[in-house]
Order: sequence, then C-alpha cells, then structure tokens
Amino acid sequence: MNPEPIRIFVTGGTFDKEYDELRGTLSFKDTHVQEMLRLGRSRVDAVIETLMMIDSLDMTEEQRAVVVERCRTAEESRLLITHGTDTIVETARALAAASSFMNAKTIVLTGAMIPYAFGSSDGLFNLGSALSFVQALPPGVYIAMNRRCFPWDGVRKNRTTGVFESI
Amino acid sequence: MNPEPIRIFVTGGTFDKEYDELRGTLSFKDTHVQEMLRLGRSRVDAVIETLMMIDSLDMTEEQRAVVVERCRTAEESRLLITHGTDTIVETARALAAASSFMNAKTIVLTGAMIPYAFGSSDGLFNLGSALSFVQALPPGVYIAMNRRCFPWDGVRKNRTTGVFESI
Amino acid sequence: MNPEPIRIFVTGGTFDKEYDELRGTLSFKDTHVQEMLRLGRSRVDAVIETLMMIDSLDMTEEQRAVVVERCRTAEESRLLITHGTDTIVETARALAAASSFMNAKTIVLTGAMIPYAFGSSDGLFNLGSALSFVQALPPGVYIAMNRRCFPWDGVRKNRTTGVFESI
Amino acid sequence: MNPEPIRIFVTGGTFDKEYDELRGTLSFKDTHVQEMLRLGRSRVDAVIETLMMIDSLDMTEEQRAVVVERCRTAEESRLLITHGTDTIVETARALAAASSFMNAKTIVLTGAMIPYAFGSSDGLFNLGSALSFVQALPPGVYIAMNRRCFPWDGVRKNRTTGVFESI
Repeated sequence: MNPEPIRIFVTGGTFDKEYDELRGTLSFKDTHVQEMLRLGRSRVDAVIETLMMIDSLDMTEEQRAVVVERCRTAEESRLLITHGTDTIVETARALAAASSFMNAKTIVLTGAMIPYAFGSSDGLFNLGSALSFVQALPPGVYIAMNRRCFPWDGVRKNRTTGVFESI
Repeated sequence: MNPEPIRIFVTGGTFDKEYDELRGTLSFKDTHVQEMLRLGRSRVDAVIETLMMIDSLDMTEEQRAVVVERCRTAEESRLLITHGTDTIVETARALAAASSFMNAKTIVLTGAMIPYAFGSSDGLFNLGSALSFVQALPPGVYIAMNRRCFPWDGVRKNRTTGVFESI
Repeated sequence: MNPEPIRIFVTGGTFDKEYDELRGTLSFKDTHVQEMLRLGRSRVDAVIETLMMIDSLDMTEEQRAVVVERCRTAEESRLLITHGTDTIVETARALAAASSFMNAKTIVLTGAMIPYAFGSSDGLFNLGSALSFVQALPPGVYIAMNRRCFPWDGVRKNRTTGVFESI
Repeated sequence: MNPEPIRIFVTGGTFDKEYDELRGTLSFKDTHVQEMLRLGRSRVDAVIETLMMIDSLDMTEEQRAVVVERCRTAEESRLLITHGTDTIVETARALAAASSFMNAKTIVLTGAMIPYAFGSSDGLFNLGSALSFVQALPPGVYIAMNRRCFPWDGVRKNRTTGVFESI
C-alpha cells in the first residue's frame, strides 16, 4: 500500500477537549492531533488543517457546509475528519449527499469518547484506526469508531451506551 | 464492513515490556492487549491468545514455527500478531513461506517502539491501526508500523532510525 | 519521625473530577485517593473517609460544619483534607475558628488544579506534599498547594493565575 | 513557612531512567525534575543542578564525594537530592559523616521505584513529599520514601519487598 498523502480536517469534538484549570470546566484550545501523530510515530505525509474547534452539538449548518466544501476542494483523495460524536452521523450524511465528488475520495470521520488529554482516552487508538481505514478503503464516506468502520448510512450512536452500532 | 471475528496472537515484544521495580530492569509479565482493547472501546469479538512472552531477538525457530502453526490452524481468517520489532520481518517471511493457507487469511503483524506501560507509548496507536488493516485488507501477510502497512516482502526496519521503511 | 496514623477526609474538588463520557461533562464518582496512595507506595496507616463528593463552590455551611465536626471527633491527631480550591480557604478558616481542638491537631488541606484522572494532574504531587507536611508540622491548620504550605490565615487563591499566594 | 530557596541535586537513579527505543533498554538522558516541578505547579525558587546521571549501583566513592562536597559548598540551607534507591543509604551516611556542616543544613534524599517516564511512577509523589520535608524539618540528613521520612541512620531498603523500613 503506497502511502498516499492524507489530509486531516480537525473540527474539535471530545478529541480535543481540555481542562481549563482557572474555570474548572472543559474547553477547547489547540488540537492535539499533531502530538498524537508524533506519539504514534506516524511517518507518512499528513497535512493537518483545523476548520473549527467546537462541540459537535454546536455545529451549525453553515459550519457543516464548510466541512463539505473543504472535502470537495481538497487535493488529496484520502481525507480524515476528527469530529464530535454527537453529530458525526449528520456530517457524514451531508458529505454523502454532496455526492459529485464521492466517487473519487475516501473520507473517514472519527471521534473519541474521552478527551485525549485524559490519561485513559480512546483517542490515540481511534486515530490510528481511522488513519488505517482511510488508506485501505475504497472511495466512500465512513465512520470509524470502537475499532469498527461503518458506511455513513449504516451506523448510529447509541446514546444510552455511547457505542456506535450498525443499523 | 462486517466485524468478522479476529484472533490476536501475543508473542511479547516491546509492546508488553514492564519495569521490574525490584530488579530495576525490563521484563515480561502479562500482556496488556486486553487492557488496550478496553481503553480503545473495541467492541468486536477478538480472541486474545498468548503464545509466548519474549523479546523477539530471543525467538527460536521452534517458537517461530509455533506462531506459523497456530496461524494455520486458527479458525478465524483475520489474524493479528503482536511481535517484537527486531525480528518481526523474519516471522512475516516464515508465515508467507507457509503459503498453503495464505490465500485465505489476512495476517497483520504489529509492534511498538515504546512499551505500552510507558506513558508515551506508540502501542495503542499501532494496535488500533493494525486492527483496522486486518479488517480492511485482502488475504496476505502484512506488517503495520508507523501508521503504514507494508507487504511482508516490502519492508525492513531501519536500525539507525528505528523506522520501518519500504524496500 | 514516627509514622503516626493519619486520617484523610475526602470532600471531592478538582482532585476527584472525572469525565462523564456519556454526557460529555465533568462529574464525580468515587475518590481516587486510594489509588494515588497505592501509586505513591505509601506505606503508613492512612484511613480514607469520604465525607462528600462535591465542587467546593457548592459546599453549604451545613457541609462545612460536617468537615469541622469530623475533624473534632477524629481520633487521629494528624488530619488531611482533600478539597476544591475555590473555597478551601473558607473551610480552613472554619476549622481554625473551632479552636478548642486546634491545639492538639495538625490539619492540612490540599487540592488540585487539574483532575487526577487527567494525565497532567498536579494531584499526585500535592498529595505527596500534603502527606509530608501533615506529618512534619506542629498543630495548626494549613493549606498545602503548589509545593508550599501556608498557615490558614496567611493565604489566598489568586483567581487570575490560579496560584495560592501569601497575604 | 517562608519559602526558603531550595537546591535540588540530581544524580540520576530510577527517577530519570528512560526507555531507549533504538536499543530496547533503559538508559539516562536528561533529568525530568524540571518537568515534574512544572507539573506540580511548584512555585518556589528551586535551583536544579545535575551532578551526574547514573544508576546508584555504579556510584563510585569519588562521585559520592562530589555529592558531599556540593552539599557543603551550596549556599542554600535546604537541599534535596534525587538518588537511586540501591545506595541511597550509603550516600546519606557519607553526608552525615561530613558532619561539620550538618548543623546548619536540612538535606533530604529521595528516589523512585518506577521511572518517572512510566505512567505509573511513584516519582511525582515522592518529589512532592521530599520537597515538603526539606522545608519543614530541622537540620539533619533524611531519606524520604514511600511517603515517610527517615533519619539517615534509621532506615534500610528491604531488597525483597522494595520498601524502605525503620531499623
């Protein structure tokens, strides 16, 4: 498998939540994706582009359109999106609906249940997983969570258990 | 992608090295793979089978034959092997040489440069990566490291940099 | 220094905040103090007693009175209290005001700026620090933070920097 | 308690052992004490001076004499030494034997059972503990381990359990 260039779009989500020690709350500062790739000794060209740093519950339709538009115009044919899990399925659907360019690009969305900055985060595992799926899968829109990879129209987040499952 | 059952063969390697606080040295006890899957919220059936707990520099031809034999007899068609990086290529070659069953099984070997028990390990990233490749790739023998996946006969470990690279 | 028995009163605070992965917020479950003592290989008898699990901004006067009362009735003469930093000074003041028993007991309050469950917490450092001060200091009420130990009436939290400083 | 200036002498020991990923062994590079103080939000002036970076089993009498001499000439009256646990008692004894300056200085030696670079290290706890004892105790030579503080002539390392105990 040739290491084709990959573009990583950062949108925030649990992945990048931090603890604000002055206010005692969770907030966003910078993305941790660069550091995670370094920790994973990831050696292939991957461009990281931060589109927004938000909780996906707060993502507006305008912002969602920005994600779609950047996926459309990106030169790379392998795209990874870090995203909050609450509306990750909606964004995947919006990407699939913009179908003109979907024949040519493999887009994998992924998220985390625990912020990377926490010791016990699933983020590093998920990022490693998503980076592999985006290299290995044919064109299409996918969601990679809990070690699995789902087609965009075959998955939902079970809000009681926090687990992504097939529909 | 259907979550086909996966079998994970543990052989030790840097992945599972621990700090022996009484002797001040590195040693092996139990595998951390179970805990790593739990951290990654991995939800698909994966059977973990510990074959040995050794530094791969110490792997004998008898032990290597055990790995091959278990891959041959395993019911699952998707197999992941955790392995020390120093002789991971040799084991991949031995698996490929036992070619009778290679048409039907996807086998991914992976390792780590830093023990999982260390805070800065690449192990969780690599395990997430390897678990994805083993699901997504067609039958064959592969080595997944540094976020890439190499065919068994197209890779070597650069001993100066510690990086796996194409040949 | 003889290892006199110590009683640790847990009241919650940042120390024990956890990430609730289903709701994406911070919350309290159980205290981490036991695990922290284990990690610190703390070998002396320390009884851990959870009085409450709250953000100190939410501590009522009734709850503060409970802390004072338990310090009064505790058999041990060396007491440590884990506490949220926002009102730790108020609780110290309440303890000092209940002065009848202050001649006989060394009471050290401590907290954390980052939850222990986060990788980058100052909690383990502060707990080690407070446990030492509570053994070494004469009777009185103290606040141990940022590696220093302040008398109860000689300290305030600088809300802009998050640092405890002398007054 | 006024925050008198403290000098920290680094000699290596388990505290500072790192994993050498190219050779798969433990080794020394730079000290982690600076980073540990930052994590502990330690706010008082502490000068860090690296004297050597060695396993204490390898400490020669010449090197031990260097430690004693630097303690003698240091301007600060509160000194902390990070040290391997295997010969920490010998160094404490050497310091006490150089008794001319012992009436004026509080010297606390501490170590760790697990390297700081490991996620599960007791180092941060011990450093917080030792920094507190060195501020709070009267002049003398002490060893702070496992949350306790022992006079130099009242302690030994139990090599079977790894625990420091009174004699």
